[in-house]
Amino acid sequence: MTAVRETFLRELRRIDSLSQVSSVLSWDEQVNLPPGKASSSQRAAQSSALAELVHREFTGSAFSDLLQRVEEDTDEPDEDLEIILREVRRDLDQAQKLPSDFVARKASHESSTYHLWKSAREKNDFAAFAPALEKTMQLARDEAEYVGYRDNPYDYHLDKHDPGMDACGIGKLFDELQTGLVPLAEQILSFAEEIKIPVLKGFPKDKQEIFLREVLESLRFDFTRGRIDVAVHPFCSGNGADTRLTTRYDSENPLDSLFSAIHEAGHGLYEQGLPSEWIGTPLSEAAGMGVHESQSRIWENQVGRSHAFWNKWEPRFRELFPEPLAEITSEQLFLAINKVSRNPIRVDADEVTYNLHIILRFELEQSLFSGDIEIKDLPGAWNEKAEKLLGLQPTCDAEGVLQDVHWSGGAFGYFPSYCLGNLLAAQLWERALEEDIPDPEDPSKLLSWLELKVHRYGRRMNLLELTKGVTGDSLDPRCLLRYLESRYVSLYEKAN
Amino acid sequence: MTAVRETFLRELRRIDSLSQVSSVLSWDEQVNLPPGKASSSQRAAQSSALAELVHREFTGSAFSDLLQRVEEDTDEPDEDLEIILREVRRDLDQAQKLPSDFVARKASHESSTYHLWKSAREKNDFAAFAPALEKTMQLARDEAEYVGYRDNPYDYHLDKHDPGMDACGIGKLFDELQTGLVPLAEQILSFAEEIKIPVLKGFPKDKQEIFLREVLESLRFDFTRGRIDVAVHPFCSGNGADTRLTTRYDSENPLDSLFSAIHEAGHGLYEQGLPSEWIGTPLSEAAGMGVHESQSRIWENQVGRSHAFWNKWEPRFRELFPEPLAEITSEQLFLAINKVSRNPIRVDADEVTYNLHIILRFELEQSLFSGDIEIKDLPGAWNEKAEKLLGLQPTCDAEGVLQDVHWSGGAFGYFPSYCLGNLLAAQLWERALEEDIPDPEDPSKLLSWLELKVHRYGRRMNLLELTKGVTGDSLDPRCLLRYLESRYVSLYEKAN
Repeated sequence: MTAVRETFLRELRRIDSLSQVSSVLSWDEQVNLPPGKASSSQRAAQSSALAELVHREFTGSAFSDLLQRVEEDTDEPDEDLEIILREVRRDLDQAQKLPSDFVARKASHESSTYHLWKSAREKNDFAAFAPALEKTMQLARDEAEYVGYRDNPYDYHLDKHDPGMDACGIGKLFDELQTGLVPLAEQILSFAEEIKIPVLKGFPKDKQEIFLREVLESLRFDFTRGRIDVAVHPFCSGNGADTRLTTRYDSENPLDSLFSAIHEAGHGLYEQGLPSEWIGTPLSEAAGMGVHESQSRIWENQVGRSHAFWNKWEPRFRELFPEPLAEITSEQLFLAINKVSRNPIRVDADEVTYNLHIILRFELEQSLFSGDIEIKDLPGAWNEKAEKLLGLQPTCDAEGVLQDVHWSGGAFGYFPSYCLGNLLAAQLWERALEEDIPDPEDPSKLLSWLELKVHRYGRRMNLLELTKGVTGDSLDPRCLLRYLESRYVSLYEKAN
Repeated sequence: MTAVRETFLRELRRIDSLSQVSSVLSWDEQVNLPPGKASSSQRAAQSSALAELVHREFTGSAFSDLLQRVEEDTDEPDEDLEIILREVRRDLDQAQKLPSDFVARKASHESSTYHLWKSAREKNDFAAFAPALEKTMQLARDEAEYVGYRDNPYDYHLDKHDPGMDACGIGKLFDELQTGLVPLAEQILSFAEEIKIPVLKGFPKDKQEIFLREVLESLRFDFTRGRIDVAVHPFCSGNGADTRLTTRYDSENPLDSLFSAIHEAGHGLYEQGLPSEWIGTPLSEAAGMGVHESQSRIWENQVGRSHAFWNKWEPRFRELFPEPLAEITSEQLFLAINKVSRNPIRVDADEVTYNLHIILRFELEQSLFSGDIEIKDLPGAWNEKAEKLLGLQPTCDAEGVLQDVHWSGGAFGYFPSYCLGNLLAAQLWERALEEDIPDPEDPSKLLSWLELKVHRYGRRMNLLELTKGVTGDSLDPRCLLRYLESRYVSLYEKAN
C-alpha cells in the first residue's frame, strides 16, 4: 500500500478513536454518571468540547486534503479502499456542507426542545410543545437544503438513516405491508381479546440477571469484548472491540428486561460480527439503521419468541423462578411471551401491531415535509391515523402525538428504520429457514450465517443491496406478513 | 471582566474538559473495560489519540497567544486571575519545554517498561529489569534538563509532584523524622511482637459494601456527585463535579477494603471541597500530591483508626458481621485495626513503619540522581537500608527493590509525597485537636474545618505555605512523632 494511503487510513482511524471516546462518554452518562446537576452539566461540557474537536479534525483541511490525494491516487486499484473512500466522502461532504453555526444552533435548540417535550408530555399539553417543534421542522428542512436530497427534503432524512432509501420507495413497501397487516392484525387481535393471558410477577432481579446472562452467552455475545449494565433506556453502544449493552430489571415484568437485552444483544452481535480488521473505517460500520434493526429483531423475535427457543429455555426459567411460575402452564407462558394487544404506545407494542405504529409516523412525517399538514394539525392527524391503523383512539396526546422522544431531537426519518428492520429480519429468517440454518441447540449456526451474509459487508452494501445479495429478491413485505401469520394466527386460534 | 480574560478562561476550561475526558477513559479502563485484548488495545489507541490532542490544544499557539495577551493586560488587577495565570504559565512552560518526540519516546518506553517490570517482579529477576530502568533514569534526567531545576535534576521531579519542595528541604524533614521514628517504631514493634492480634475472616462482601457506604456517607462524601466502584487497585479520579472512588472487597480481609475506601474518600472529599465555581482552573485543583495525601491520610488514620470512630461504628460492624466477630473482643478488634508489624511491602505497611519505607526510597532516588549509586547497585542498597530503617531483610528482590510500580513508570520524586502527606495530616490533626474540632458524632465539623483551612485554596498555596497558613508553623515532623507515640505506645503497652 502506498504511503499516502497508509497515512490516510491511520488518520481515519485516529479520528474514529476520538468518536469512540464520545460514545464511551455517552454510555457512561447513561450508566454511571452521579445524579447531581454538577455532574451532568460537566458531562455536557465535556461532550460538546469533544464533539466540536472531532468535527474539526474530520472536516479540517488536513484530513480533506489527505482524502483528496488518496482519491486522486488511482494507480493500483484496491476494492476495499474504494468502498472506504466512497463512504468517507459521503460522510465528509455531509459534515462539511452543514455550516458550523447551523450545527451549533441545531444542537442548542434540540437540547432545550428535549426538556420542553418532556414537560409537555407530562402535562399532556401539545400546544406548549408546538412552537419548538415548528422550529425543529424548519431546521430539518434547512439541513436537507444544505446537504441536498433526491426528490424532496424528507428523502434526505430517510437516506441519512438508511442509505439508498427514499420516501417513494418506502411508501410503496409500507403501503403493501399496510394492506396485508391491518386485516391480519385485526384477526389476531380479535382472537387475543378472547383470551386471558397471565401476568408475570414477582421475579427476583438477581435471578433475572443470571438467566439473561446465560441466554446471551448461549447466543454467543462475546463478553470478553462486551458487557451488559443497567440503564433507564436499553441501548447498545460501542463497536465490536468494546460492545456495551444495557437493560433494566423490573421484578413485575421479567420479559421486558429479557427481550430488551436480547434485542440489544442482536445489535451487539452485529457490531461484534463486523470485520474487526477494518475497525475505524466504514468497512466495519453498520450498513444503516434498518440493517442494524434487522439484526436486533431477528434475535429478539424470530429466535427469542419462538417455540424452539422456549422448549430449550423453559426448564431453566422454571428452575430459577419456581414460585411465580407455579400456576402458569407452558402454553400460558408462551402466550405471555407472544402477547398481542391493542396498545396506543409504540414502545410497548407487540411485533404484530408495532409496524402499524411506524407506518402512522412515516405518513405523518411525509405529510409534514410535503406541507400537506402543519405542526398544529398533528394531534388530529395522529388520532385519525391511530383509528384507521390500530383501531384505537389515544385518550390524550401524551398517549398519542407526544409519546416519542424522536421528533424533539429532530430525528425525522428515523422511525421507518424500525419497520425496514422488521421487513429485512423476516426476509432473512425465511431464507435461513429455507437453508435449514436455525438450530435452537446451536444458535451459533444462525450467527455464523448472519456474519457471512450480512455482518462482514459493513457499509459495502446498503439495505436494498444486502437484501438482494442474501435473498436474491427485493425487499418484500410479504415475508413479514407470512411470518406474522404463521406464528400468531395459529397460536391464537389454538388458544381459543 | 475584560473580553480577553473571559475568552481565556473559557478556553482554559474547554481544554480542561478534554483532560477530564482522559480521566473518565482511564477510570473506565480500570473499572469497566472488557477483559479481551481487542478492548484494551482499542482503549490504548483512544487514550493516546485524546492525550495527543489535549497536548496540542494546550501547547498550541492559539492558547499560548491568549495566555500572553491576558498576562500583558494588567489594567484591572484581579487576585484570583493572577494565581490562575501563575499556575497555567507553570504548566504551559513545563508542557512546552518538553519536545513532543521526547514525550512520545518516554510514553512508549514507559508502556513497555511496565510489562518488563511486571514480569521481572514475578520472576524475581532484577537483572532483567535493570537495562530498561537505566533508560528510564536517563529519560528522567533528560526531562529535568529540558524543564529546568533548582540545584539538581531530582529537585525537578520533587517539585513536579509537590510544588516548592526540593531534595534539600525534604532531606532535612526526613532526617528529623527518621531520628525519632526508627527508635519509636522499634519500641512499638517490640511490644507488638508479643501480642497475638486476631485475623478477621469470613466477612461477606455485600455486607462490607453496605458498611462502607454508611461510613462514607457519614463522612459526607457526596454521592450526588460521586460514586464508588470495584477495581484491582483502589484510587480516586475525577474532580469535585464527578468524583470516582474505587476499592476492592476480600471476604478474608475486610479492613483492607474499608480503609482503602476511607483513604480514597479522603482524596474525594478534598476534590469535592475545592471551590466548584473555579472548576477547570488551578484554583480548583489540588495544591500537590503531598497535600492530597494529607487529606486521604487524615480520614483513613487520624479519624478512621481512632477509638472515637470505633466507639461509634463497632455496634453496627458487629450487627452486620455477628459470626466472624463472635469470638473477638473490642480490644482485639481495635488492635487488628491498628496492627503494627515488620513488613517488607510498603503497601501492606502500617502507619508507624510506612514512613520508613518512604525514607528508604527517597534516599535511594537521591543517590541515583546524584550518581552516588547506579541502577545495578539498587538491590544491595535497598536491602542495606531496609535493615537499617525497618530492621528486616527482604527475602528476595520481589519483596524489595522490585515491589513498587512507580519507577517502571518513571515516577521518580513521587514517593516522598506520601510521607509529606503523613507529616501534614498529623500537623493538621494536632491543630484541629487544639481547636477542639474533631467530633466523632459529627464528622462534618472536621470536614468544614479542612475545607476552610485547606480545600478552598486550590493551588493558591503550596504545601509549605498551607502548613504555615493553617498552623502558623513550618512543616514539623515532631507532630507525626507525637501522634504515633500517643496512639501506638499506650495502645501496645496496655495490650501487653
